[in-house]
Amino acid sequence: MRLAALLLFFATVFAISRVDGYIEQDVDCLSWHLAVETNNVRNWKLVPEECEQYVGHYMLGKQYRKDFKIVANNTIEYAKSLTLVGDGKDIWIFDIDKTTLSNLPYYARSDAIWLILGHYHTMTQSLTSGLWRELCHQYRGLCVYQTLLPLGFKIVFLTGTAERFKYIRIFNLKAAGYHTWEKLILKEEADQGTSALVYKSKKRTELVDSGCRILGNLGDQWSDILGDNSGNRTFKVPDPMYYIG
Amino acid sequence: MRLAALLLFFATVFAISRVDGYIEQDVDCLSWHLAVETNNVRNWKLVPEECEQYVGHYMLGKQYRKDFKIVANNTIEYAKSLTLVGDGKDIWIFDIDKTTLSNLPYYARSDAIWLILGHYHTMTQSLTSGLWRELCHQYRGLCVYQTLLPLGFKIVFLTGTAERFKYIRIFNLKAAGYHTWEKLILKEEADQGTSALVYKSKKRTELVDSGCRILGNLGDQWSDILGDNSGNRTFKVPDPMYYIG
Repeated sequence: MRLAALLLFFATVFAISRVDGYIEQDVDCLSWHLAVETNNVRNWKLVPEECEQYVGHYMLGKQYRKDFKIVANNTIEYAKSLTLVGDGKDIWIFDIDKTTLSNLPYYARSDAIWLILGHYHTMTQSLTSGLWRELCHQYRGLCVYQTLLPLGFKIVFLTGTAERFKYIRIFNLKAAGYHTWEKLILKEEADQGTSALVYKSKKRTELVDSGCRILGNLGDQWSDILGDNSGNRTFKVPDPMYYIG
Repeated sequence: MRLAALLLFFATVFAISRVDGYIEQDVDCLSWHLAVETNNVRNWKLVPEECEQYVGHYMLGKQYRKDFKIVANNTIEYAKSLTLVGDGKDIWIFDIDKTTLSNLPYYARSDAIWLILGHYHTMTQSLTSGLWRELCHQYRGLCVYQTLLPLGFKIVFLTGTAERFKYIRIFNLKAAGYHTWEKLILKEEADQGTSALVYKSKKRTELVDSGCRILGNLGDQWSDILGDNSGNRTFKVPDPMYYIG
């Protein structure tokens, strides 16, 4: 009986591999994740119920950080391989949510919502459902940013966040270590209702029309890196949490 | 001592999870694989040495089949959602190698090379280094094909294989169950030296110029599904074995 319990314990411990703490009973979640990351599965509204545990453990465990790290390393390697013109038109585009700033602590802490509300109440004097997005911490995106800046890239943050949240975004970008940028493009009232793909394509085309060269583009959604003028090279940050089309 | 051996046995058995028979000591191979599948890592020549075991077990184990299956299911779901014009111009493009036909038995059997040589010697009366590519078996791609055909899609096989192998390809397509198609496009002498991306874009543009509507496109390489006229929707079959740009 004791031996059986011991074996069960070891079986449990060693079954943990793909993501910390996640015991792979239904490996189709791995296939679903791969299919999502490769843009084979699109327009999904929610993580499949049977994969909620997988996604939770993936995002909060080591594998997500490792997966993000290899993307960041390849981004940096590519950026370093370029020769810039240096006329201020060498642009790198960053998405913000889940690329530049993270909302993961929101999911990790049961009391996080109170922290956010308390924090932003003083910032905005109003509470909105979108505010949870603003609990941010430093991220792999920051390593990329910190490498690109001294190389001479001009940074453009392109986000689907509404214009009215501009100063919260600025506050959080600066708090996380993003101290300077060429442009911070937020979604104006006129663009509300436009899909992310169309909106971001339009904004990038405006940049190109003004003479900018988009040399790179980093985002966690395919709608960040597909469409018109997506950039000479694009990089996809893992994100099995939600889909924005 | 016996208990220790027993525990080691269970530890080994239960450590096998992501891919059959592969014990995850260096999980960065998972990150590398994800980065490859998402087109973050490009122009790689060889599987990193430390990931050879991972890739071998992945391809020959259950996970590859599951990963391919979800792609096939999503392809079929999308295809069924379409309303075709039915004028013979509703096109679906299939890559051949690793999408439509598999060369996996080549890797799985140590004697496979002899089988191939024996088989194709009678086919071509000459032996070339490319012939190993022709040992094929039925594949997930066939399920997609068999669903698309009665829906009214016209099938175009678009491959980087040289024109001189045309009849070997036809033989193997038919042997695997692909009994009919609209076009089988192989790489002509004039296109040798052209990258897969440029070559496939050119051939697809010719199809579109002739009035075809490319409704879907299935391939294992990003160069199959990026570029001009890639199709209304594209699907990426997993492939951590090689990169064709």
